[in-house]
Amino acid sequence: MLLYWYEIASVDFSFADTVGILSVGSCEQHGEYLPVGTDGLIGWRLAQAAGERSEGKTLLLPPQQIGYSPHHRAFPGCLTLSQETMFRYLLEICRCAFDNGLQKLLLLNSHGGNQSCLQTVVNELGAQYDYRPLLVRYWDLIADTAANLRSSGSGGMGHAGEFETSVMQYLYPETVHPERFGQRACAPGNQYHNPDLFARNAVYQYKPFHEYDRRGNIGQPQLACAEKGEKFFRAAADELAKLIDFYRHNNF
Amino acid sequence: MLLYWYEIASVDFSFADTVGILSVGSCEQHGEYLPVGTDGLIGWRLAQAAGERSEGKTLLLPPQQIGYSPHHRAFPGCLTLSQETMFRYLLEICRCAFDNGLQKLLLLNSHGGNQSCLQTVVNELGAQYDYRPLLVRYWDLIADTAANLRSSGSGGMGHAGEFETSVMQYLYPETVHPERFGQRACAPGNQYHNPDLFARNAVYQYKPFHEYDRRGNIGQPQLACAEKGEKFFRAAADELAKLIDFYRHNNF
Amino acid sequence: MLLYWYEIASVDFSFADTVGILSVGSCEQHGEYLPVGTDGLIGWRLAQAAGERSEGKTLLLPPQQIGYSPHHRAFPGCLTLSQETMFRYLLEICRCAFDNGLQKLLLLNSHGGNQSCLQTVVNELGAQYDYRPLLVRYWDLIADTAANLRSSGSGGMGHAGEFETSVMQYLYPETVHPERFGQRACAPGNQYHNPDLFARNAVYQYKPFHEYDRRGNIGQPQLACAEKGEKFFRAAADELAKLIDFYRHNNF
Amino acid sequence: MLLYWYEIASVDFSFADTVGILSVGSCEQHGEYLPVGTDGLIGWRLAQAAGERSEGKTLLLPPQQIGYSPHHRAFPGCLTLSQETMFRYLLEICRCAFDNGLQKLLLLNSHGGNQSCLQTVVNELGAQYDYRPLLVRYWDLIADTAANLRSSGSGGMGHAGEFETSVMQYLYPETVHPERFGQRACAPGNQYHNPDLFARNAVYQYKPFHEYDRRGNIGQPQLACAEKGEKFFRAAADELAKLIDFYRHNNF
Amino acid sequence: MLLYWYEIASVDFSFADTVGILSVGSCEQHGEYLPVGTDGLIGWRLAQAAGERSEGKTLLLPPQQIGYSPHHRAFPGCLTLSQETMFRYLLEICRCAFDNGLQKLLLLNSHGGNQSCLQTVVNELGAQYDYRPLLVRYWDLIADTAANLRSSGSGGMGHAGEFETSVMQYLYPETVHPERFGQRACAPGNQYHNPDLFARNAVYQYKPFHEYDRRGNIGQPQLACAEKGEKFFRAAADELAKLIDFYRHNNF
Amino acid sequence: MLLYWYEIASVDFSFADTVGILSVGSCEQHGEYLPVGTDGLIGWRLAQAAGERSEGKTLLLPPQQIGYSPHHRAFPGCLTLSQETMFRYLLEICRCAFDNGLQKLLLLNSHGGNQSCLQTVVNELGAQYDYRPLLVRYWDLIADTAANLRSSGSGGMGHAGEFETSVMQYLYPETVHPERFGQRACAPGNQYHNPDLFARNAVYQYKPFHEYDRRGNIGQPQLACAEKGEKFFRAAADELAKLIDFYRHNNF
Repeated sequence: MLLYWYEIASVDFSFADTVGILSVGSCEQHGEYLPVGTDGLIGWRLAQAAGERSEGKTLLLPPQQIGYSPHHRAFPGCLTLSQETMFRYLLEICRCAFDNGLQKLLLLNSHGGNQSCLQTVVNELGAQYDYRPLLVRYWDLIADTAANLRSSGSGGMGHAGEFETSVMQYLYPETVHPERFGQRACAPGNQYHNPDLFARNAVYQYKPFHEYDRRGNIGQPQLACAEKGEKFFRAAADELAKLIDFYRHNNF
Repeated sequence: MLLYWYEIASVDFSFADTVGILSVGSCEQHGEYLPVGTDGLIGWRLAQAAGERSEGKTLLLPPQQIGYSPHHRAFPGCLTLSQETMFRYLLEICRCAFDNGLQKLLLLNSHGGNQSCLQTVVNELGAQYDYRPLLVRYWDLIADTAANLRSSGSGGMGHAGEFETSVMQYLYPETVHPERFGQRACAPGNQYHNPDLFARNAVYQYKPFHEYDRRGNIGQPQLACAEKGEKFFRAAADELAKLIDFYRHNNF
Repeated sequence: MLLYWYEIASVDFSFADTVGILSVGSCEQHGEYLPVGTDGLIGWRLAQAAGERSEGKTLLLPPQQIGYSPHHRAFPGCLTLSQETMFRYLLEICRCAFDNGLQKLLLLNSHGGNQSCLQTVVNELGAQYDYRPLLVRYWDLIADTAANLRSSGSGGMGHAGEFETSVMQYLYPETVHPERFGQRACAPGNQYHNPDLFARNAVYQYKPFHEYDRRGNIGQPQLACAEKGEKFFRAAADELAKLIDFYRHNNF
Repeated sequence: MLLYWYEIASVDFSFADTVGILSVGSCEQHGEYLPVGTDGLIGWRLAQAAGERSEGKTLLLPPQQIGYSPHHRAFPGCLTLSQETMFRYLLEICRCAFDNGLQKLLLLNSHGGNQSCLQTVVNELGAQYDYRPLLVRYWDLIADTAANLRSSGSGGMGHAGEFETSVMQYLYPETVHPERFGQRACAPGNQYHNPDLFARNAVYQYKPFHEYDRRGNIGQPQLACAEKGEKFFRAAADELAKLIDFYRHNNF
Repeated sequence: MLLYWYEIASVDFSFADTVGILSVGSCEQHGEYLPVGTDGLIGWRLAQAAGERSEGKTLLLPPQQIGYSPHHRAFPGCLTLSQETMFRYLLEICRCAFDNGLQKLLLLNSHGGNQSCLQTVVNELGAQYDYRPLLVRYWDLIADTAANLRSSGSGGMGHAGEFETSVMQYLYPETVHPERFGQRACAPGNQYHNPDLFARNAVYQYKPFHEYDRRGNIGQPQLACAEKGEKFFRAAADELAKLIDFYRHNNF
Repeated sequence: MLLYWYEIASVDFSFADTVGILSVGSCEQHGEYLPVGTDGLIGWRLAQAAGERSEGKTLLLPPQQIGYSPHHRAFPGCLTLSQETMFRYLLEICRCAFDNGLQKLLLLNSHGGNQSCLQTVVNELGAQYDYRPLLVRYWDLIADTAANLRSSGSGGMGHAGEFETSVMQYLYPETVHPERFGQRACAPGNQYHNPDLFARNAVYQYKPFHEYDRRGNIGQPQLACAEKGEKFFRAAADELAKLIDFYRHNNF
C-alpha cells in the first residue's frame, strides 16, 4: 500500500509495519539535454513504483528536490544547500518522523553528491534513536543489471550518461533533448578513481564538473534509449521494493 | 508563461523579466477532516494558477512542503523545522536563485506559522543583496473577497476553518472528510488577539493548537463548500497574478 | 508598582502576579534631527510610564538598546545585530526570566526592524515553555489616536516622521534638532506597501533606508510638535498599562 | 568630553581621537544586601566618571547589563548568557563600532565571570581588524589602592565583599541593605587559588557560588563603608581616565 | 623524504612537490584485547612508513587520535566528537594547510566511523579551493592482499577482528592481550550489509557495537598473528606510498 | 603511575583516584630557530614528566598539538583553530572524559594564545558538571624559579625567548638552530602591558606577532642554554606533579 504523508488527515496516521521513504534529489545541470531536476524526478518516481510493488505499507514523506551540488554551480540552474544546513534540515525532518512513531525510515538517494551528507544524517539519527534508518543510493541495488545492459564502457554511465539519460527517456521523454546528445567519450578516470556510477573506487575525491567536461556530463548519452531506461527503472523499482519488505521484517 | 525550475535544462535558463516563486507550506494537522499537507497543496496550486494568469514569465522553484509548526506537534502527522534551520535552508535556496541571475523572487507563504521566519529570510536577503524579494501570505491579498463571502463570524476562518476547508473542497475534494466536520463554534479570542486569518491583531503571541481546541481546528468547517472555495481560490490566483506582474515591472 | 530587575537584591525577588517587560530598541539613524537611540529611549520611557500606571507589579528587565538595523547601516551611528545572534541573545535572557519563575513576559518593541526577529523569539519561547509571552509594537496599541491626531497623510508617520519626532520633542527635547527638519514629503509607497507606521500592508519587504530617502527619514518631521508628542505618549502609556493588566489576569 | 552614542544624531558622529567604551556588567546575586545589577551599575558609573576626567573625547556605547553568570544561577535574579551567544553578541556590536570608523575601543569589564569571554572577543576582533581593542577589569587598575585601604585579609574582597559593598554604599546607598551584612569570614581558598579580587592565582577554575557560601557572597561586607567606597571609586575613575588617555595617544 | 610539520622551523617550510598527510584515528573500544587508540596508532605508523617509502617529500600534519565513535560509547574509554564539530575542526586545519601553500593533501582514515564526516570535509574543501584533497581508508588499498591472506570468512575481518588484531600484534604487541581473544564467530550480516571491512554493501546503516556483540568486536581475533599483521601493514604502506607518489604527479 | 589513554584496553579503564591531563599546545612560528610545534612538544613532555613524579594515577588524554594562533598566521607553518571550533572540540573531548567517569581533569596549557579559549571551556564544563576541572598555564607554576634563573630583563622571556628556547635546547636540541639566534632586544611593552611570560598586566590585548617583531619572536634567545632549560623544566615538572597530587586529594 502506497501512502503520501501530506494527503493523510492527522487522525488517520498509524505507523505499524510501515516503512517511510524520504526521497532526496538535486537541482543541477545534467548536460544540455536533461532537466536540472533529473535526480529528484527519478528518485520520486522510484519511491512511488517501489511502494506500489511492496507488500506492506509504504509511506512517502514529502520529496526533497534540492540537495548538495556545489560541484555544479558553475552551470546555470543549480540550487544547492551547504552540507551543514542539509544535515540539520534532513535531521529535523527525520526526527519528526521518528517522534511521530515511525520506526523504519529509508533515505532514498538519487544524487551522488548527497551521499556523504546523508551518511552523516544516518549516523546522527542512529546515535540519537534506537531505530536504524537505512540509506540507499538506488543504483547500488542494480549493479548486476546495469552491467548486463550497458553499452558503454567504464566511465560511460556517469552523471547524465547512458544510465540516467535512458531512465529519463523512459520516465519523462518530453524533458529530454536527444538532438543535443552529440558523440561523447567515456570519462577516463585513473587507477584510483573513475566517475562511473558503478565503479568501485579506492579513494574519495571532490571534483567540480566543469573539470570533468566543459558541458558538465560524464558518459555517453548517445547510447541511451527509453527501452533500456525502462529496464533500469523496473529493475531498480523491483529491488527497492524487495529491500523495503526485507527492512520491514528484519532488524539491521 | 509558467515554468518549473526542475524541468528546465541548464542551458535553457534565462532570467530576464522573470519572477520566481518559492511556495512554502507545512505538514501539520488540519482538523480530522483535512490532510496534513493542506497548506502546501494550496500554495503550490495557487502558484501554478497565478503563473498561468500572469502576463510574463513566472518560474516556480521546487515547492517546500515542510515549514514551522511546533504548535501542532501534539497531533499526529506533524513535520516541522526549527526556525533556525528553516531560516538557513530557505536562505541558501534563495541565494542560489539570486546567484543564478534571478532578480525578482516572491516567497509565497500559505501557512501562518511560517510568516515570522520568512520575514527574517526576506530581511537577510535584503541585507545581503541589492534585490528586493517580496513575501506574501496569500490570504492577505483577498481580505475584501473573504469578508464578502464568509458565512462565519470572527474566529470562523482560522486554521482548517471555513476558508481553508472550502478551498480544499474545491481543489482536492478526495482528501476532505466532510462527515467529520461536526458543528463547531468560532474561536472567541480577546480584545487584543483573534486567531481568525483576517483579524488585525494588536499583539503577537504563540499558542499550541491543542490549547485552542482539543481537535486542533479554529473556525467552522461546516460552513465550507466547494463553490465558495472556488471563489476564494480564483480571487487569490487573480490577485497573486496581479502582484506578480506589478512586481515584475516596478521596484519595491 | 514599578520595579527594576537590576535594583533588587536576590533574596527580594518574587514573581507572583508580576508582568515582566523587556524593552527592545535600536541604535540607528533617525534623520539628521533625532538621536540614533530614539527607539530605545522611547521604549524604555514607555515601559516605565506604563508600569507606573499599571495596577499590579510590573518588573522591568534591563533595557535593550541595540536591535536589528542593517537597513540603516549606510548611515553613521548604526549598531546592529544579526537576526541569528539577536534571536539567541534575547532567547537566553527570556529563558532566564522564565527559569527564575516569571510567568508573564511582555516584549515591548519600539523599532520596526526588530519585529520579525522578536516574533521568532516569541515562537521559540512558546514552543519551549508552557508560558505565553506577548509581543507588542507599541504604536499598534494607538492606531486610533494616531489617526485622530496626525497632520500628515499616509507616509508621513514613518521612520523619524511626524509621530516619532513629536514623541521625542516631548520626552527628550534637548536631543532634537528642529532646525534640520526642512520641508519633507510623505513617502509615496505603492498599492501593496507603504512605510507609514500605521499602514496595513499586503506584502512584506526589506528596504535599505537610503533607498527611501537619501537622508534616511520617512515622513514629515516638520509637522511634529511636543504637544502632539505628549498626547501620543500618554495614549501609548495608558494603552500599554491596560494591556499589562489584562495580560496579568487573563490567559492568552 | 563625555558622549553617549545613543544621544547623538547620525550626522553628528565623528570618531577622530575618540576612545569608545563598552561597559559590560551582569545580573546576578550579590549577597542578600546588594542588588543583582551591582556590577553593571558600578561599571557604567565608572565609564561616565572616567569619561568626564579624560582629556579627550570619550564615547560611551550602550551599557551591557547582562553577562556570563551561570555560577550564580542557583540564586534568584540571575540573568545570564551562554558564552557562545555573549561572544557573538558583543563581537557584532564591536564590529559595528569599528565599521563606523571608531579605532580605539575599550571593553570595560566589571564582572569577573565575563573576563574569559571578553578575552575571546578581543582576540577575535584583533584577528579580524587592524585595530587593537583593549580589555580591562577595572579593579586591576587599582591593586595598590585596594591593598592600602582594605581592612579585610585575603579572601575578604571577593564577590559582594568589602570592596564592592563599599563602592555600592558610595554610589547607590539606597539599594544596599547593611542590616543583612552579618558577620562573615574571609573565603579561605588554597595555595593555588583564592577568590579574592586581588589575588594572583596559579590556576584557573570555575566554581558555583553556592559552593563558596550558601548565601553567595565572598568576603566581608561588614567591613565596608561609603567613605572607603568613594576612595575606591575615585581611584578607579582616575586610573581608568589615565588609561583612556594613554590609549588614545599610543599604540598597543 | 618524511617530514613532521611540528618539527620544522617557520622559515624552513616549503611546499613544492609536497604531499601532506593528515592521519585521523579514534579512541574507542577494540574488544577486550586491543587498546582504544588502535586506529590512530595504526594510521600514524602507516603514514610514517608510507612517507619513508615515498619517492618525494611527504609532510605529516599532527596526528588526530580522536574521531567519530558514538557507536562505541556504551564501552569504557570512548572519546568521540560530534560530526558537526569534527567537520569544522578538520576543515579549519586543512584550510590552514592550504593557506600555507600546500596543494596536495591526503586525509588518511584508519577508522570506519570517520569516513562520512571526512567525505564531507573533502567536499567542503573542494568547494572552497581549487585544490583536490584525497581521502583514503587505508584498507581500501589492499583489498586483494587481504583476500589472499585472510583465514576468516566474511564477517571475520571487522572491528578488532583478524585484520586489525594482526596489525597490532605486529606493530604494538605489548598492548595486545591474546589471552582474551577467546573463540569468536564471524559477524553474520545480511544480504544487504556485512560489517566486514572488505564487504561491498548495498546499503548504509549505523549500528551501535553492543548490538553487534556484547563485547564490542566484529570478527575473529583468534585467527590473528603478527606475521600476517606484518604482511598487511607492509602491503598497506607500499600501496599508500604508491598512491602518494601518483597523487604528487597527477591531477585528480 | 603514568598511563596513556590510547594504550589501554576498554575493559581495563578505571578512574578511581585518577587525575586526567589534557595537554594543549600549538603549531605556529617560534622564531627562525625553534620548531612550530614547540609548545605542544614542551607541554606533552611536561605532562609525562609530572605524571611520572606524581604519587597517584595520572592518565594522559591524547595530546592536542593545534591551538589558537591567528596572531602568528602571517608566518609559515601556522595551523590554527577558530576559538569557537576549539571551544566545541575541547568541550566534547572533556565531556567524554567526564562521561566515562573521570572526575579530576587538568587542562595543561603550554601556549599563551590558548588561555582565553581554555578558560571558556573550563567555565562551560563547570556549568554543566559537578566536577571542577582545573586549567594551568605551566609557567605560572614557576614564577619564582624563572625570576631567579633568568638572565634577561622584562620582555626577554616572551614567545621563543630565553625561557622557551632554553627548555627546547634541553628537551629537543636537534630541532633548535642556535646559529639563527642573533642578538635580540627585550620587547619594550608599556606601563599597562608587557609580553613577557611572567609579567602581570593590567590590561588584556591581542597583537599579531609581526607587529612585535618582523621575525616573530619576543625576547632573547641568545641568553638561552640547555642547562637553564633543564632547571626550568624540572621545576615545572615538580610543581605540576605537586599540583596534580594536591588536586587529587582536595576539592577546588
